[in-house]
Amino acid sequence: MPEYVLLLSCPDRRGIVATVTALLFERGANIEESQQFDDVGTDQFFMRIRYSVQEGDPGADGWRALFAPVAQQYGMDWTIRDAARPYRAVVMVSRFGHCLNDLLFRWRSGALNLDIPAVVSNHRDLEPLVASYGIPFHHVPVTADTKAEAETALRAVLAEHDVDLVVLARYMQVLSDGLSSDLAGRVINIHHSFLPSFKGAKPYHQAFERGVKIIGATAHYVTPALDEGPIIEQDVVRADHRMTPEDLVRAGEEVESRVLARAVRWHCESRILLNGRRTVVFS
Amino acid sequence: MPEYVLLLSCPDRRGIVATVTALLFERGANIEESQQFDDVGTDQFFMRIRYSVQEGDPGADGWRALFAPVAQQYGMDWTIRDAARPYRAVVMVSRFGHCLNDLLFRWRSGALNLDIPAVVSNHRDLEPLVASYGIPFHHVPVTADTKAEAETALRAVLAEHDVDLVVLARYMQVLSDGLSSDLAGRVINIHHSFLPSFKGAKPYHQAFERGVKIIGATAHYVTPALDEGPIIEQDVVRADHRMTPEDLVRAGEEVESRVLARAVRWHCESRILLNGRRTVVFS
Amino acid sequence: MPEYVLLLSCPDRRGIVATVTALLFERGANIEESQQFDDVGTDQFFMRIRYSVQEGDPGADGWRALFAPVAQQYGMDWTIRDAARPYRAVVMVSRFGHCLNDLLFRWRSGALNLDIPAVVSNHRDLEPLVASYGIPFHHVPVTADTKAEAETALRAVLAEHDVDLVVLARYMQVLSDGLSSDLAGRVINIHHSFLPSFKGAKPYHQAFERGVKIIGATAHYVTPALDEGPIIEQDVVRADHRMTPEDLVRAGEEVESRVLARAVRWHCESRILLNGRRTVVFS
Amino acid sequence: MPEYVLLLSCPDRRGIVATVTALLFERGANIEESQQFDDVGTDQFFMRIRYSVQEGDPGADGWRALFAPVAQQYGMDWTIRDAARPYRAVVMVSRFGHCLNDLLFRWRSGALNLDIPAVVSNHRDLEPLVASYGIPFHHVPVTADTKAEAETALRAVLAEHDVDLVVLARYMQVLSDGLSSDLAGRVINIHHSFLPSFKGAKPYHQAFERGVKIIGATAHYVTPALDEGPIIEQDVVRADHRMTPEDLVRAGEEVESRVLARAVRWHCESRILLNGRRTVVFS
Repeated sequence: MPEYVLLLSCPDRRGIVATVTALLFERGANIEESQQFDDVGTDQFFMRIRYSVQEGDPGADGWRALFAPVAQQYGMDWTIRDAARPYRAVVMVSRFGHCLNDLLFRWRSGALNLDIPAVVSNHRDLEPLVASYGIPFHHVPVTADTKAEAETALRAVLAEHDVDLVVLARYMQVLSDGLSSDLAGRVINIHHSFLPSFKGAKPYHQAFERGVKIIGATAHYVTPALDEGPIIEQDVVRADHRMTPEDLVRAGEEVESRVLARAVRWHCESRILLNGRRTVVFS
Repeated sequence: MPEYVLLLSCPDRRGIVATVTALLFERGANIEESQQFDDVGTDQFFMRIRYSVQEGDPGADGWRALFAPVAQQYGMDWTIRDAARPYRAVVMVSRFGHCLNDLLFRWRSGALNLDIPAVVSNHRDLEPLVASYGIPFHHVPVTADTKAEAETALRAVLAEHDVDLVVLARYMQVLSDGLSSDLAGRVINIHHSFLPSFKGAKPYHQAFERGVKIIGATAHYVTPALDEGPIIEQDVVRADHRMTPEDLVRAGEEVESRVLARAVRWHCESRILLNGRRTVVFS
Repeated sequence: MPEYVLLLSCPDRRGIVATVTALLFERGANIEESQQFDDVGTDQFFMRIRYSVQEGDPGADGWRALFAPVAQQYGMDWTIRDAARPYRAVVMVSRFGHCLNDLLFRWRSGALNLDIPAVVSNHRDLEPLVASYGIPFHHVPVTADTKAEAETALRAVLAEHDVDLVVLARYMQVLSDGLSSDLAGRVINIHHSFLPSFKGAKPYHQAFERGVKIIGATAHYVTPALDEGPIIEQDVVRADHRMTPEDLVRAGEEVESRVLARAVRWHCESRILLNGRRTVVFS
Repeated sequence: MPEYVLLLSCPDRRGIVATVTALLFERGANIEESQQFDDVGTDQFFMRIRYSVQEGDPGADGWRALFAPVAQQYGMDWTIRDAARPYRAVVMVSRFGHCLNDLLFRWRSGALNLDIPAVVSNHRDLEPLVASYGIPFHHVPVTADTKAEAETALRAVLAEHDVDLVVLARYMQVLSDGLSSDLAGRVINIHHSFLPSFKGAKPYHQAFERGVKIIGATAHYVTPALDEGPIIEQDVVRADHRMTPEDLVRAGEEVESRVLARAVRWHCESRILLNGRRTVVFS
């Protein structure tokens, strides 16, 4: 049975749920999953519905046409997406491969609604790992002087592979403001600290200096402001006085992989909406 | 504004959500919170809606009359409850007071939608703590010989205080099958292990013998089968080889209090539905 | 059997452990528990030994006299303390009582190596709770104008009760630099965020604004620099998009109580050493 | 500098630590790490010392010769091992590859004191993954009828690769009592439940039926009694009413990988001692 995911947000008003569910019911859809959230602070309403269609399915474009008048009536930001169509995601990485290895394995074992058509890196270290999965490895080196042309090359790769999503899986270069803006809401980064603590470089070393007893990782959408984008997911792991910065790095790898995988999974199941600087995650 | 919580379960069918939300919309309700779950294994549908009414509120009984035809049409198990009306809960306890102390403090600070009209115990140890909260302490001792008359006394206390809920906050006596059945779905027990591990007596000692590296606690509804009732909530805490059974007992107290408080909170916010031997918790 | 806790730190050198354990062995002590840590970054050595004495116990002062020459030889910072002697701690609090309630209950049930001779507050809200434990409640109001005389009153209370430790259990006033310095290493504060995130006022509101997915609490020693003191313990609890700042406050209470209780327990079992801006916690 | 790990257990007596540390000191060793545990229940003493030798290192056999008299004096079970020598571990697996993938990646990135000379499987599914790491893949199919000859083949593989450790990384066959006994203390299994809950087959399905709110994984040494061996490590992940058995399987994979990796790491750093049916883990 075809399945779709409807994702919407709009100013809160009485009757939204009744209107939307009536439309789906009349057109033969069956609601498989439904979540909603009413932000009382901003009076904004958020909803995700996954529905199946037993017969008479008009297709994704058909559903969009049916839904457009309702969306206009309520002033909605919205998408309808074929639930079976995987997101196409390019993974970018520098030298640490744990997140990449984790994503590639999950992708290959079918655990994510995702296709990974290519990997981009500014180093060559992880080329063999990528090769073992039989997908292209694009080496795009970056220096202070070549940043602009590197991003041109990167844009070409993204265009070539027609991607929905870019995953920065421990990619240690900062994207330019222009690229960040152009890809707004479509780039997920894993930062190796519990944001907003320890922004920027060497967060585990910062954590060591401060003597924290727990370290963490944060998956967030990339915005021009470094490590300030909307947070999707965070998790932590205990630290203690015996751990050197190198121990923290190693302990953090596990939580980085886990947090990034969750964020990517939710994004690729259309479970995330932006709410200003925050996210609504219908996990 | 008056608020109500509608809780329902029924065989899954197309149109339930549309029908329910249309009714609420037509009668002037605004949905504040809505959660649903479709159990694909049993084809059973579960829903919780908290709604407010700006004007023309018919009251709880009025809403029940309005909703009854829909409920009948779909074969629903359902309740509608005034969200502002606290649940009345008698707490039962033996000698360990940490859960009782936690519940009394949360109740007094307004953190739970709960009234505690009285405490029952088979010992006198915790009478001063209860007295400091200014509520009656019923001492109902139990021996193998006096179990029947103790339960008669207990039933009298429950009747006197018109309770919705009984909380066994480390009450170390087993309720009879008859009382368990009569109070089905209205008695929450905290068991001091991670069920189904270590049922019955002295679970921390059992855990010690087995050498587990994590211990836990389980809040569940009481049924005649000991420690087999539907689980509401569980949580854990790490153990290590240095911990004696007494250390496990102490470490467990914290997690017991926490797990029981969560289960009681969810029950008193009408967030829990039974699904055979399992629970649906719209937390 | 009498028991003592030896706590020491000194520059790392070969032979420290052999020398210390030989001394204890020769004087009839039995090591019950021993932990050590060699900070390779600073070349500083830290050790805690709990030992019992079957016969010929020279008493705490006797042990100090025996140990002094070794301590001098290695340039140690050190203490020897009778393990059975509880720490005397005054608890300070403002209006939120969850941490105080938790500490009082743990103290009364014997779970902490602690005596609480008195509670100090700048408000009267928690006087009844304190009264139910039968200990003095000192009301010391503080305004911008009366801060100096309030601290004079506070110093008098601490002197009167001969305290080893001050616990700021959600005390919402900042201690002066002078008092912080005078009590260095003897004041534990619970801060209601995961430091270094969200220092200062209203951390849960800051956390809400930033949209974090986990909130936390931090117990630390107080220093003149606000919320910058050495961290003893931290813990976290998950948040999600549905939680208002008030929900975060409530969810945080639990973790605050837990974190503070752990820090106090470790301090009162002589398990904590300062290592510059960090702590060594032999938990 | 050469480093060694001394691991010992013996009946508790006064003077063990003084004797052992004096020996090390006299022979020029520097203690880098030391942990001890006195089991008051069984009066058994456990110790781990990692020490370095600046000059005059007699080598592993030399240290063993030096230590033997002390060991005999106190009736110790003991080992001394060159800390730089990696453990040789064969990994066995069936069809689920997440634990294998995780171990191979950690091994290759140098995070474990481990060599993996070969992988054994009763299926061919994971041969390509193993091949990408350039190590032999031994296919040893097992049926009810061929179990004995399969174990003969397995013993040959283990002998060929001269292994210290066998890791059952979701290997779905039960080892015979004979092999379990012969390899006692040298086979680590990951069981996909929080033992002792849900022993045997399909633990996630058992967990689903019972309606637990948390699932877990357990790494333990293999003994002839199925899923009854000494537990090394456990961890958990939350479940809820929406999760099907398949969802539990997927959620569990992450925790299985993590728990197994920790157990293998500790084993390969000589951090684990058996204490009857339990383990002492100097993590």
